[in-house]
Formats: sequence, C-alpha cells, structure tokens
Amino acid sequence: MAMYDMTNLQYQAVYNVLSFALASMMATTVYLWFRSSAVKAQFKSAVLISGLVTFIAAYHYMRIFNSWVEAYEYKIDKEDPALTGVPFNDAYRYMDWLLTVPLLLIEILLVMKLSDEEFSSKAKALGVAAALMIVTGYYGELVVSGDLTPRWVCWFVSMLFFLYICKELLVGLAGATQSETDPIVKDKIKMAQIMTVISWCTYPVVYLFPMLGISASHSVVAIQIGYCCSDIISKCGVGLLIYQITYAKSNKEGLLP
Amino acid sequence: MAMYDMTNLQYQAVYNVLSFALASMMATTVYLWFRSSAVKAQFKSAVLISGLVTFIAAYHYMRIFNSWVEAYEYKIDKEDPALTGVPFNDAYRYMDWLLTVPLLLIEILLVMKLSDEEFSSKAKALGVAAALMIVTGYYGELVVSGDLTPRWVCWFVSMLFFLYICKELLVGLAGATQSETDPIVKDKIKMAQIMTVISWCTYPVVYLFPMLGISASHSVVAIQIGYCCSDIISKCGVGLLIYQITYAKSNKEGLLP
Repeated sequence: MAMYDMTNLQYQAVYNVLSFALASMMATTVYLWFRSSAVKAQFKSAVLISGLVTFIAAYHYMRIFNSWVEAYEYKIDKEDPALTGVPFNDAYRYMDWLLTVPLLLIEILLVMKLSDEEFSSKAKALGVAAALMIVTGYYGELVVSGDLTPRWVCWFVSMLFFLYICKELLVGLAGATQSETDPIVKDKIKMAQIMTVISWCTYPVVYLFPMLGISASHSVVAIQIGYCCSDIISKCGVGLLIYQITYAKSNKEGLLP
Repeated sequence: MAMYDMTNLQYQAVYNVLSFALASMMATTVYLWFRSSAVKAQFKSAVLISGLVTFIAAYHYMRIFNSWVEAYEYKIDKEDPALTGVPFNDAYRYMDWLLTVPLLLIEILLVMKLSDEEFSSKAKALGVAAALMIVTGYYGELVVSGDLTPRWVCWFVSMLFFLYICKELLVGLAGATQSETDPIVKDKIKMAQIMTVISWCTYPVVYLFPMLGISASHSVVAIQIGYCCSDIISKCGVGLLIYQITYAKSNKEGLLP
C-alpha cells in the first residue's frame, strides 16, 4: 500500500484502534476455547472454530499493528510522525479473511439443523464464493489513488460473490432456521445471520472511501477504523453468539456435561 | 499525551509500578483460569471472565510499560533520562477500561441471585453506562496542561455515568444481595460491590491531579501510580473475591465436581 503522511492524532487513532481489536480478538479466543467444554459434544467443534477465527485474526492484528508502528517514526523535535519508508502491509487483512471468512460461514452452518449432505454442499458453495470474493477484492485494494477504474471493476466483481453469500445466508438457510423449535435459539440464529450480513456490508462501503473524494490519509484512517469495527462485530460478536446458541441448545436438550 | 522531562527517580518509580501491576495481572489470570475448574458449572463463566479481565489488563500493561520505556532514553553522561520524541501512549488505559469495565460489572452480576431477565437488563444498562463513562473521560484526558476547561467538562459528564453505576451497584442490587441466605457469601458479595466502588473512586480523583496545581511531570507520575493501585484492587482484588464467592457457593450447595 502506498504510504501517506499522518498527523500525530491520525497515527494514534489507527494505532489505538488496532491494539483494541487485537485485545478483543485475544480475549474472545480464550473465552471461546475455555467454554468449548461447556457445550454438548456435537457443538464443541462450532465453538472451537469460532475461537479459531478470532485466534487467526489476533495473529494478523499483531502483524498489522507492528507493520503500522514500523511505517512511521517519531523524531524529538517534531510532533507528527515521519514516514520510515517501510510500507504498511494491509495485505494481512486479505490473508486473514481468506482463512477466517470460510470458517465464519462454517461456524454458522454447524449450529443449524442441516443434514450432512446439505451441510457439505452449502459449506462448499459458500466457501468457494467467499474465496473468490476476497481474491477479486484484493486486486482493487492495491489502487487507492490516481485512476480508480480497476478498483471499481474489482468492487463490482467482488460484490457479485458478496450478494450471493448474503442471499444464501438470509434466504437459502431460512428454511433450516424456521425448523428450530426453541424460539430463543431461533432468534439467536437469525441474529447471527443478520449480524454477519450487516457487519459485512461495511466492508464494501469502507472499500469505496478512496472513490468518495476522501483524501488519501483520511481514507487510510477511516478504512482501518472501519475494518476494525466490522471485524470485532463479525468475529467476536458472532462468535460469542454462536457459543450462546450452542449453550442454549445443550441446556435445552438436558445433556450438559 | 504531551511528554514531560522526568528525573531518574520519577522515571524509575513509574517503570517499577507498571512492572509490578503487569506481574500482578499475569499471576491473577493464571490462578483464576486454573481455579475455574474448581467451582460448579454455573459459576465457571464468572471465574473465567474475572481471569479474562486481568488477562486483557496484562496485555495493556505490557504495552504501557513498553511505551514508557520507548519515551525516554539514558545517555552515558547524564543521570536523568532524556525524551526520545516517541509519545507515551496513555490511551491504552482507556482501551483497556472499555473492554474490562463492562466485564468487571458482568462478573459481579454473574455471582448474584438474579433472574435471566434481570441479569440481561442490568448487564445492558451498566455496560452502556460504563462505555459512556470511559469515552467521555478519554476526551478530557488529552488535556493535561494549559486551559483545563475541557478536562473539567469531561470530568463532570463522566461522573454522571460513574454515579449512576455506583448507585446501581450499592442500591439497585442491594435486594439481590439481601436474598443470599449464607451470611459469609452475603458479606463477600457486599465486599465485592464496596471494593469496586471504593477502588473506582480513585479514578476521578487521579483524573483531577492536573487541576490541583500539581506540576505536569509530578502529576504524570502520580496519575500512573494511582491508576496502577486502583487497577490492582479493582481487577485482581475483586477477581479473587469473585472466585471465593463462587467457591463458597459451590461448597455450600454440596455439588463440587
């Protein structure tokens, strides 16, 4: 990613938000892994995978944080940090999503009432669509200034896969959600699907920031804060919801360990 | 945060107190996580969350410690350290509180006799109040010298939320505390509530240091030592008390695993 000068406040804002996201990911990981022993055997995997998603994200946030710190340096006589020439590597986010987005979709599928065949076909279709969405999006992310045409093209192609996944989550899986008998469980599964779709909607919006006439340094700050918020909702928030769903299902069926 | 020259003694005082707080947080985390398996299933989550609070705090103390070290450097011919130009990032504390204060309130609620509806409504109200208290406080923290009016305004607004939380802890939850049958458990829950309120009272006092005519460098030292003491009491102290409450409740009901 091309680098831009930051004021002290801009640099600190990104720095603190990245650290906050890292702490959230680590804490959620530990909680989910500990609590995976509190649900019925058939749901342990869903809770473990939810913790795996935040674990992978914690690793990448550590890398992103370090990359941000290495890209700038403070000098004794200046308030604002100066560029060091080391590029800030935003590709970590795409590497992260390539692993975590398919896992996020699988953790939602794992708590739903699906036959083995349905699970396997849905997981494959959603996993492939997610990978294509991320790979096409990444190419456009390399362009943040100058002629933005490639960024627009990538945005449109990536959106096609994005809309397919949203359709599957909201419509394709509606039948399985309706078949839940417990109203609390049903509501929570619906909430996990809606939270995922809504928090994901911020990614294509954030992606558009450089096209909205926002200056390069402002758009870098807005992109980083936007992605952090979306990641916390879609990974920590949805992960904790998945745990609550499996915990409710385990209790209801009276088979807590 | 604007930086101030420190004498060798001042620098070392903050350095050692930060390291002491870090060690306390790490040790409490490990103890609570290990002991979470010693209480009844229904209380495991409360003990785990208590350990999560100190875990998140340990992470932030590591960052605060490193930031303090990077802000100053020793030279061979001088006794006192010199500023490096790298700002000391105190925002870590606010990032920490944003995560740990709601969790601290939840860990207290989790050991009380509350119905699911009461728990959920209290947790929401206290969580939102805590977040607002911290966000409003943070804005004022950016001002430590010059015109302190914004710091005063932030202090008052933040105090409103603070007083609401204290009122809820001491009055709103008094009924649930009274309904405990075991006198030892009842006393310990009362103590957790009072310890939380008293240790929290130091935060608004520490916040006032720059307004009390204390010089900038003295007030930085006093703020750091004050926050460390409050954090150790409210996080390690209350966390260990939560463990004792759940352990007593588990034993009493004769259902230890």
